[in-house]
Amino acid sequence: MIYLDNAATTPVNPEVAKVIYDSMLTTFANPSSLYSAGAKSEAEMNRARTTVAACINAKPNEMYFTASASESNNIAIYGMALARKNWGKKLITTGYEHPAVRYPFEFLREQGFEIVYIDPESDGTIDENKVIDAVDKQTSMVCLIHVNNETGAIVDIEKVAKGVKAKNSRTVVHIDATQSFLKYPIDVKKLPIDSLSFSAQKINGPKGIGGLYLKSGTNIKAVFAGGGQEGGIRSGTENIHYIQGLAKACEIMRPEMAKHMAMYKKLHDRLLDGLKQFDNAVINSPENRAPFTVNISFLGYRSETLLHFLDQTCGICVSSGSACSKGNRSHTLSHMHLSNDRIDSALRISFGVQNTESDVDALLDGLKLAKEKLQKVKR
Amino acid sequence: MIYLDNAATTPVNPEVAKVIYDSMLTTFANPSSLYSAGAKSEAEMNRARTTVAACINAKPNEMYFTASASESNNIAIYGMALARKNWGKKLITTGYEHPAVRYPFEFLREQGFEIVYIDPESDGTIDENKVIDAVDKQTSMVCLIHVNNETGAIVDIEKVAKGVKAKNSRTVVHIDATQSFLKYPIDVKKLPIDSLSFSAQKINGPKGIGGLYLKSGTNIKAVFAGGGQEGGIRSGTENIHYIQGLAKACEIMRPEMAKHMAMYKKLHDRLLDGLKQFDNAVINSPENRAPFTVNISFLGYRSETLLHFLDQTCGICVSSGSACSKGNRSHTLSHMHLSNDRIDSALRISFGVQNTESDVDALLDGLKLAKEKLQKVKR
Repeated sequence: MIYLDNAATTPVNPEVAKVIYDSMLTTFANPSSLYSAGAKSEAEMNRARTTVAACINAKPNEMYFTASASESNNIAIYGMALARKNWGKKLITTGYEHPAVRYPFEFLREQGFEIVYIDPESDGTIDENKVIDAVDKQTSMVCLIHVNNETGAIVDIEKVAKGVKAKNSRTVVHIDATQSFLKYPIDVKKLPIDSLSFSAQKINGPKGIGGLYLKSGTNIKAVFAGGGQEGGIRSGTENIHYIQGLAKACEIMRPEMAKHMAMYKKLHDRLLDGLKQFDNAVINSPENRAPFTVNISFLGYRSETLLHFLDQTCGICVSSGSACSKGNRSHTLSHMHLSNDRIDSALRISFGVQNTESDVDALLDGLKLAKEKLQKVKR
Repeated sequence: MIYLDNAATTPVNPEVAKVIYDSMLTTFANPSSLYSAGAKSEAEMNRARTTVAACINAKPNEMYFTASASESNNIAIYGMALARKNWGKKLITTGYEHPAVRYPFEFLREQGFEIVYIDPESDGTIDENKVIDAVDKQTSMVCLIHVNNETGAIVDIEKVAKGVKAKNSRTVVHIDATQSFLKYPIDVKKLPIDSLSFSAQKINGPKGIGGLYLKSGTNIKAVFAGGGQEGGIRSGTENIHYIQGLAKACEIMRPEMAKHMAMYKKLHDRLLDGLKQFDNAVINSPENRAPFTVNISFLGYRSETLLHFLDQTCGICVSSGSACSKGNRSHTLSHMHLSNDRIDSALRISFGVQNTESDVDALLDGLKLAKEKLQKVKR
């Protein structure tokens, strides 16, 4: 299998799997329990917290464990908006966010908040100045995805965060870093953001654990309530096994970031070069994109038909958009106002640490074969 | 280590750990992905769903996976209350619920709901008739813990559910079965309840996965929003590894329920018999209790002092109350209006499948030693 859908999820690194397995066999006590086995679990958890926090230069007590980046986004968006509802009923986000950001905002709109959506430009980028310009005295939150999950479009989060704070120092900035965590360096000591979400499954950890950075002192209301674990904002017995696994994934990925990025660029350039042979291949990702996620349209062929052909005939996994959309028309591409022909023939190719140049070549060969074997869509 | 705190969490069964480990190495694709590896993950997930649902005689499409029983409670309570807010602003629960139930109700109270708390009787039981009597036309939800996590007190959920539905057929009944799942038989085809929560960590599965039964056709609002997984009520990429582990834990535990219960009764009777030698031991659990959770007061000795002595000197793990309370005064015992002397000397002993009669004997020896070595609290 040639797996080129790393924006959806990534294979679990066997070393990470081993850490989790060992943890299940040796570290089972509830970290909240008062006896020494509980203290051992708590110590392991805090060791992991320090490791994970260090990846973005955060303090350990600014790092919270959740079950997914989706949950981290929900906690941050609801929690920070509700804590500021007395003065700040205006919230700003973009028109191309992941559903885990989009729907919490929809819920808040029902609760009486005003949501301002900044749509992407036709090239798929967000104009940072438009975001900053929309901030006023009533704006309590700005929320942006760092690297778009469908196109790889990059937002200059430093520019946005500094611009937002200059206009209103009370406005909190939340970054969805699900696609960028441990791919691009992020230093929360230098970046004036208040919260940031990510997950293990995009960095070769397991599905089912996420992280939330929350700047110390940030006012947040706990919506998901219970036993008061994770500083009260995320209740439920801590998933010590996956927490240790996430820390291991961080330990493995962090020193390799530059090396991985260089490899992604190489794979990206090889792909782009190879795509030139197809007169029907159009790049949907903007120029300012992450090299590990490329969205193309293979005009004349339906995404799903192509995807299944590549899977069944060549053993290649790519996606038609985000995994969550399950074949529905792409939200991001629709908001870029692309033609339906382009949207319906879109493929997302996303690289991971295990990919090689021969994977790119196999994909190009697969597309060539698809063009020979598949019938074009009738108009 | 002699572990007698199975109400807090349980050791992971090595067979369950192995299933999870294998899943991490072989089943990594996102279940929402359209290629065959995604379909394989989805098929594994649905196989697991069928196994788990069968434990309470539910249909597979009535079973939802979450990250914890706490999350299941939050989803059910918020989701069902908000879906009925137009006609049913009155919600009924008890005064001795777990914080994962108590706090969502507090949040709903802030949102304008009226919450009726039925306090336990002085013996620690809930009078089912008082719950039923409180139901009126505006009551949209009744929520009860099946087996109390601190005392093992049992609620007759069949009596409550039938009584509630007879008074108002629109009232939904949510059961927190965290402590009773796969210990007492529950058949949702016969029991007129609408939702039920539980977790893997109490049945020798890992920490970090829970389940929510939701009767098909039940109206619920999704609060935790995102990619729309789990029928839209619990978004986030599915934790396929732990889902398979939960199913394995169910497969192991389900055929052994009667055997385990007989063993718990044996351990319980041996403990109670042994406690007779101590003139300062008082039972806080009601007569109508689950045999696997016994709450006692060892008058004259502070819970924490005893707990640490048993841990450090005898290698025995018991708790002073729920793990979540982390040494705070017990919520359940306070609501039973016990004296502070009793509350402050309370110990919870809770049995699991790995316990034997010699564990009970070791605890009794430990208590005897504690009485010899420890100074009584000065009045």
